[in-house]
Amino acid sequence: MTAEGHARGAARGDARDVVADLAALLGDRLTTSVDERRQHGRDESYHAPHPPDAVAYPASVEEVQEIVRVCARHRTPVIPFGAGSSLEGHVLALHGGVTVDLRHLNGILEVNPEDMDVAVEAGVTRLQLNRHLRDTGLTFPVDPGADATLGGMAATRASGTTAVRYGTMRANVLGLDVVLADGTLIRTGGRARKSSAGYDLTHLFVGSEGTLGIIVGLRLRLHPVPEHAVAAVCAFPSVERAVDTVIAAIQLGIPLARAELLDERAMDAVRRYAHLDHACAPTVFFEFHGSASETRADTARVRQLAEERGGDRFRVAATTAERERLWQARHDAYPAALALRPGARGLTTDVCVPISRLTECIAETQADLVAASMPVVLLGHVGDGNFHLAFILRRDDPAELAEAQRFADRLVERALRLGGTCTGEHGIGVGKVRFMEREHGAAVDTMRRIKLALDPQNLMNPGKVLPAGAPADAPAPSAAEHAAVER
Amino acid sequence: MTAEGHARGAARGDARDVVADLAALLGDRLTTSVDERRQHGRDESYHAPHPPDAVAYPASVEEVQEIVRVCARHRTPVIPFGAGSSLEGHVLALHGGVTVDLRHLNGILEVNPEDMDVAVEAGVTRLQLNRHLRDTGLTFPVDPGADATLGGMAATRASGTTAVRYGTMRANVLGLDVVLADGTLIRTGGRARKSSAGYDLTHLFVGSEGTLGIIVGLRLRLHPVPEHAVAAVCAFPSVERAVDTVIAAIQLGIPLARAELLDERAMDAVRRYAHLDHACAPTVFFEFHGSASETRADTARVRQLAEERGGDRFRVAATTAERERLWQARHDAYPAALALRPGARGLTTDVCVPISRLTECIAETQADLVAASMPVVLLGHVGDGNFHLAFILRRDDPAELAEAQRFADRLVERALRLGGTCTGEHGIGVGKVRFMEREHGAAVDTMRRIKLALDPQNLMNPGKVLPAGAPADAPAPSAAEHAAVER
Repeated sequence: MTAEGHARGAARGDARDVVADLAALLGDRLTTSVDERRQHGRDESYHAPHPPDAVAYPASVEEVQEIVRVCARHRTPVIPFGAGSSLEGHVLALHGGVTVDLRHLNGILEVNPEDMDVAVEAGVTRLQLNRHLRDTGLTFPVDPGADATLGGMAATRASGTTAVRYGTMRANVLGLDVVLADGTLIRTGGRARKSSAGYDLTHLFVGSEGTLGIIVGLRLRLHPVPEHAVAAVCAFPSVERAVDTVIAAIQLGIPLARAELLDERAMDAVRRYAHLDHACAPTVFFEFHGSASETRADTARVRQLAEERGGDRFRVAATTAERERLWQARHDAYPAALALRPGARGLTTDVCVPISRLTECIAETQADLVAASMPVVLLGHVGDGNFHLAFILRRDDPAELAEAQRFADRLVERALRLGGTCTGEHGIGVGKVRFMEREHGAAVDTMRRIKLALDPQNLMNPGKVLPAGAPADAPAPSAAEHAAVER
Repeated sequence: MTAEGHARGAARGDARDVVADLAALLGDRLTTSVDERRQHGRDESYHAPHPPDAVAYPASVEEVQEIVRVCARHRTPVIPFGAGSSLEGHVLALHGGVTVDLRHLNGILEVNPEDMDVAVEAGVTRLQLNRHLRDTGLTFPVDPGADATLGGMAATRASGTTAVRYGTMRANVLGLDVVLADGTLIRTGGRARKSSAGYDLTHLFVGSEGTLGIIVGLRLRLHPVPEHAVAAVCAFPSVERAVDTVIAAIQLGIPLARAELLDERAMDAVRRYAHLDHACAPTVFFEFHGSASETRADTARVRQLAEERGGDRFRVAATTAERERLWQARHDAYPAALALRPGARGLTTDVCVPISRLTECIAETQADLVAASMPVVLLGHVGDGNFHLAFILRRDDPAELAEAQRFADRLVERALRLGGTCTGEHGIGVGKVRFMEREHGAAVDTMRRIKLALDPQNLMNPGKVLPAGAPADAPAPSAAEHAAVER
């Protein structure tokens, strides 16, 4: 049985019928233009594009509901689309269907300074939100790098450099508005800071990658803009010493706002790219948030921990301009890596392991990568045990892609062996579906039951998250039902 | 249709058959003694007891699985039981069946100081865990008051006085081992500090109150024991000024470890009970955790905020003995309230609202309570917007129970009107099932679909959390099926 195994009922409708019905609803906000379909059939990842049959641009939640109802009637897949910055092929229209681009749902509906929360539509991006919050003393700190939409960040359970202090999307989504597979709109969670009233649907939808419904609205937790932010950088004689320093700081309860590791290859790339004078050694970029005295104390304590572990050239920056200069190397890491090989692109992957196993995981990975024929850089959110590899390769060269994929697969196997997860923040998409059984065992069956219960026709972003198979006791589809959902 | 509506298939088996099968499995760890059944048919709440047909004491996870399989075969309800300290009738055997007392699953399996996590069996209590952690420099800070089991705390999404700093069980459960309705054991979550690999089953089971499966093991996040803890108490001219002080502190990012409000009635009760010299005024009990300099700075800032808002007699205690003396009034609040009326018991309830609406919610509640014929005290976890009422009454007097219930119902309606939840930390159990539709609207149908998918026979703690009804498109049970699950 394929990933489509649980789809049931009548054969999938003709794409032309869906398009006609949606065009009647949306007018020129429904397009079948080749260019727009192509733009929506890919993300930032290396996965081969799969354009949808059409792209819809709803202007309201009601229109999203109506689109989903029309697609349900025609048994047509629905793929939500935010900024297209996902990294594991989350938005590919693997089985065709209609991509729902949420860019027009970009209203910031309500800011509550007293409760430190905000209600936004799903197409609002994180930088748009933070610009809007500029004069409130509040900020939304989750920072995955790209200016992703908040709906997409929730759907993929995104995080980034600040998760060590402020948590991932899981910790910062208070509630969601979700359009379900039958077009019903539900509101999960609420405005109270805590509740024990019923099942936690919010966290079921956070990270569900559009496979259980379309997130159309979010209520998010905000945080006070820190009074002071201090940056620091320190080079270490080894990755182990670098990681040990961060672990020690966390165990002492020092609230690190960021702790980013670049390995020696990444630092070498950055030095060449920006002519910076950093050492060509494993380096941690720190950030501290708090009052002036807190950040001063925290910085001094981490400096001591670093120096006790052989940390060298611990440099501190307190003004915005100095901070930005100090962190330049971190921000440049990806473009600098790409510049190692003009014309090349990246294949990025991420894993996350218990921090006690991070050194071991990185050491084994670096030893493995010695055999790589292409440049590979390592960047890590050390405080979370989460790190990335970026393989610098030619995406049109199948041999290079296959080689990078082999290294990436071994990385995942290593992370799982060390008690970790196949992805800390990039998500499953299509790229890591094959690791779900290995990581979650029998729990995958529980996930399938939930998918079947909420999306019985398997039309919500089909082919993502869950591997082929059906819940152990679900009725097997007939061959005709099976064939109906294949293209 | 009743809450049992989705049960299907053959009629429920005879209790004697289940008991015989389980006795063969468990020997004298299966009992039908009237005393033990009675003890397991009630919790700390005012809800009328419902003893189970038998009580099982499994000694291993495998035995839990086998008990669930036997009960599934006989279509017999299964009710998990921890310390019995729940507050909304979570453990009542509404439809008979077998109570599974997890006291023998009390192993602390693994402590990882580097990763600051711990693996425990579900029957371990929070004080047992913290005694075990004593020399590690780590602590498990979630504190609901009672020495509840960690499995029960996860199942009810418990929290308590420290949630404002350390979060509720939601934030502190990294993963669970759960025995599902068919006896399958799954492991959710993992040891990595973050993951975006698939649906968040951990948080689906946290707060599911045994209705989706039995939590048999937990992986929990630990926190560093704070270097210093400082306590402070301050009386305020009004609840509003007290709440405003706490909101201001949170908005400034001052990390309050605890912020407990007692209203003037509660303070009056405490003064009489323990002959303490506190003012008979709304009072906030604070606690600050951190380094010596941090706690000093935090205390000074909160003192200033309090005094700007009319706070009086701001008293500070830094040694353990002084802290305990200062907090005595808070710890005594419930016994002191009971002492207002010898021989009486409590009916406690809780709600949670956005903190911006907390003052309003408390003021309306106090105005309403003027008409109460019995003493009522108010205690609040102000930083969360969560507060409790304790009605001091005779539980054997139906008129008193009915009166208290009317006040409690109006409190819930008020909280919902103000954007809050019908329970911040006590849970739904049987006591608040009737508010689920009002609070969650169409999302209750989504919860029902999940329940039906994971527990198709409705045998896992039936009658809790979800109100009567079936998912919109679920097949309606026949009259015979319906009758089969009624007692």
